[in-house]
Amino acid sequence: MREVVVLGAGLHRYGVDPDKSATDMGTEAVRNALMDAGMRWDDIEAVYCGTGGQGTWGAGHLIGRVMGLTGLAITNVENASASGSAAFREAVLSVAAGAHDTAMAIGVDTTPPKAVNRPSTSPPLGPVNIFAAMAKQHMEKYGTTRDQLAMVAVKSHYNASFNPYAHFQEAVTLEEVHQARMVADPLTVLHCCPWDGGGAAAIVCARELAGKYTEKICPTVVSSVLKSTLAGGDPMVDLTEFSAKIAYEQAGAGPEDMDLIEIHDAFTIEEIIYYEALGLCEEGEGGRLIEEGVTALDGKHPVNSSGGLISMGHPIGPTGVGQVAEILWQMRGECGKRQIARPVNLAMAHMVGAGGVCVIHLFRK
Amino acid sequence: MREVVVLGAGLHRYGVDPDKSATDMGTEAVRNALMDAGMRWDDIEAVYCGTGGQGTWGAGHLIGRVMGLTGLAITNVENASASGSAAFREAVLSVAAGAHDTAMAIGVDTTPPKAVNRPSTSPPLGPVNIFAAMAKQHMEKYGTTRDQLAMVAVKSHYNASFNPYAHFQEAVTLEEVHQARMVADPLTVLHCCPWDGGGAAAIVCARELAGKYTEKICPTVVSSVLKSTLAGGDPMVDLTEFSAKIAYEQAGAGPEDMDLIEIHDAFTIEEIIYYEALGLCEEGEGGRLIEEGVTALDGKHPVNSSGGLISMGHPIGPTGVGQVAEILWQMRGECGKRQIARPVNLAMAHMVGAGGVCVIHLFRK
Repeated sequence: MREVVVLGAGLHRYGVDPDKSATDMGTEAVRNALMDAGMRWDDIEAVYCGTGGQGTWGAGHLIGRVMGLTGLAITNVENASASGSAAFREAVLSVAAGAHDTAMAIGVDTTPPKAVNRPSTSPPLGPVNIFAAMAKQHMEKYGTTRDQLAMVAVKSHYNASFNPYAHFQEAVTLEEVHQARMVADPLTVLHCCPWDGGGAAAIVCARELAGKYTEKICPTVVSSVLKSTLAGGDPMVDLTEFSAKIAYEQAGAGPEDMDLIEIHDAFTIEEIIYYEALGLCEEGEGGRLIEEGVTALDGKHPVNSSGGLISMGHPIGPTGVGQVAEILWQMRGECGKRQIARPVNLAMAHMVGAGGVCVIHLFRK
Repeated sequence: MREVVVLGAGLHRYGVDPDKSATDMGTEAVRNALMDAGMRWDDIEAVYCGTGGQGTWGAGHLIGRVMGLTGLAITNVENASASGSAAFREAVLSVAAGAHDTAMAIGVDTTPPKAVNRPSTSPPLGPVNIFAAMAKQHMEKYGTTRDQLAMVAVKSHYNASFNPYAHFQEAVTLEEVHQARMVADPLTVLHCCPWDGGGAAAIVCARELAGKYTEKICPTVVSSVLKSTLAGGDPMVDLTEFSAKIAYEQAGAGPEDMDLIEIHDAFTIEEIIYYEALGLCEEGEGGRLIEEGVTALDGKHPVNSSGGLISMGHPIGPTGVGQVAEILWQMRGECGKRQIARPVNLAMAHMVGAGGVCVIHLFRK
C-alpha cells in the first residue's frame, strides 16, 4: 500500500444557515482546503463527497461543476453520521491503490429544515433517550457524577470558544450546563450536539508527491478502519473497542501514545464511554478521566480540541472530515488559543454512525 | 496495485416488485453471489452498496444485518445511474489497496413508486426528449435510419429473452418496435429502458486468494476508470470517449479487442452513439454497425448480451453490478442460449450517470 498523507484541509463554519446550499458551503470548504494545501482545483484527481442528508444527493457533482470541469473522478459516499469519515477513507484507499495520486474528501450537508440549535423535544428523540439511559446506567454502576458528565460539555464549549469554524463559540460554566433545559435526564440541552449544516474538505496525496505542493507538515495516515454490524455487542461502544484495536495494531501504537483524539461526542456520556472503549482508561473510569483534566487541552490525552460534535457542531457529512482538519492543524501548531500544550505526534479521528458503523483513522506527524 | 479478480456474482430479477424491500432483493442477490463464488458471508471483508434511489438510504447496513453480524466494513455509494458501477470500483480499489482481501459490490434499488413498465408521458420526460433530439440529429447528419435504431431494440429484446434475470423476456420484431406507442419521436416505448427495481452483487478478491474459494474462471479487472465533469464536451458521449481511452490504455488493448461490451443503453440511440464513442466504428457509422450484425451475439463485437438497460432493465443501483455478472458468466460460458459465439476474453462494462459521470471497467479472462 502506498503511503498516504494529508496535504491540507478547509472548512465552512458549522451552524444554522438555511439559506445556503450544499454547493455554497462545499465550494467554500474546497477553496479553503486548496489554499491550505497550496494546490489548484485541477491538481485534484478524485473527489469523494460524504453526505448524510437526502437533500444533498449528488452534491459532489454540483460542487465539481462550480469548481471547474476537469474530468476528475467524483463519487458520493454515505454512511450515516460517519459519511464524511467514510468519504475520507475512500479517498485514502484510492490513493493507496494507485488509482489516483491526489484525492479530496468533501463533507457537506445543508441545515435540516427542522434544525434547532439544540435537540428539542421534537423528533429525533430516539438517540437522546438511548444515551440518557446509558448515562444513568453508567452513574449507577460506576459512580459517575452529573458534574463529571457536565465537565465534558464545559471542556467542549471552552475549546470551541477558540475555534472560528465552531457553531457555538461561547464558553459555559458547570452551573450553566446543569441549569440548562432538561432534554432527557440527566442530559440537559448543553450535553447534546446540535444538528446543523456546514462544509469540510481534506486533501490527501501519495507521500512522495507532497513536496510538490507544500512545505507544511503532512501527517501520514497510519490506520484506516471501518467496521459495521458486530455480533453480540453494542453497535457503537463495542464496535468502537473492536475498531480501535485494529487501528492501534495497524499503527503499531496504543492509547497511551495518543496526543489528540477527536471523538464522536453527540452526547457527553458518549465521550466518557468512548474514553473507556478506546483504552484511555479502564471501564468505569471515564468520569475520573475528565475530572482529572487528562483530556483537556493541557492534559496528557486531549480529546476534542475542536469542540467536538457538542460545540463545534454535527452537520453529519462534514463532521468526520472536520476532525481531519483539526488534527492536521494541531499537528502543524496552527490552532492559536486552542493549540494543545504538548507536541501532537499521533492522533485519532473517531466517528460512529447509526445503522452500526465505526470509522477510525490514525495520523502520525 | 494488487491484481483484483471477480470471483462470483448473483442477481435478483429486475422488474416491477413494489412489495419487495431493498433488503429482500439485496439479500437474494448476495446469497446467489456467495453460492456462485463458493464463499460464505463471513468470507466477505467489505461491502460497497450502490443505490441511486433515496428510498434505499442505508441499504448496505440493512442487508448486512440480515446476512449476519460479522464486523465487516459497509459503505454506501451513490453516483446516479452509475451507482452500482461506482460501488464496484470502490470494492476493487479497496482490495487493490490491500485494505481488504475480499469485497462485495451490491447494487439495489426498490421499484420507484411511480414506476411504469416503460417511460410514459409522465415525468421524468427530460431524458427521453434529450435523446429523441439526439436521434433526430444523428439521422439527419449521418443518414441513420429508423430501422437501424429499432434494430437495437430488437437485438436487446432477443438477448433478454434468454436471460432469466431480465425484466422483459419476450423477443420483439422490427415492426412491433415501430408500431409501439410513440414517446418522443423517433423513440417509441420499445426504444426506452424501464425504471424498475432489482438487486445485484459481485464479489472481488486478490488474485492470489481466488483458488481458495473457486475453481471457476475469475476474470481480472484490468481497467477501472471513473470520470466526471469534462470541460467543453457532452457529459455522456464525450465523457465516454475520454474515459474509454484511459481504460484501453490501462489494459493495453483497444476497441478491436472487445469480445463483449455491456453499454449504458437507456435509449436505442445511446447504444449507437456509444458504439462510436467507444471506437467500435467511426463517427456516424453506428447505424451501419447494428445493421451489419457486428454487435449481435454471433457478431465480432457483441454488445449487451444481457439485454442491456432497455430489456434487462434499469433499476439504477443494480445496473452496473449486473453488467459485471453478465461479463463473468459470459467468460465462463454459462449463458445458455444467449452465450456469445466467439470466446469472450476481453470485455467492458460501461455506464454513464446524470450529473456527468462515466464508469468503465475492463475484464480479462
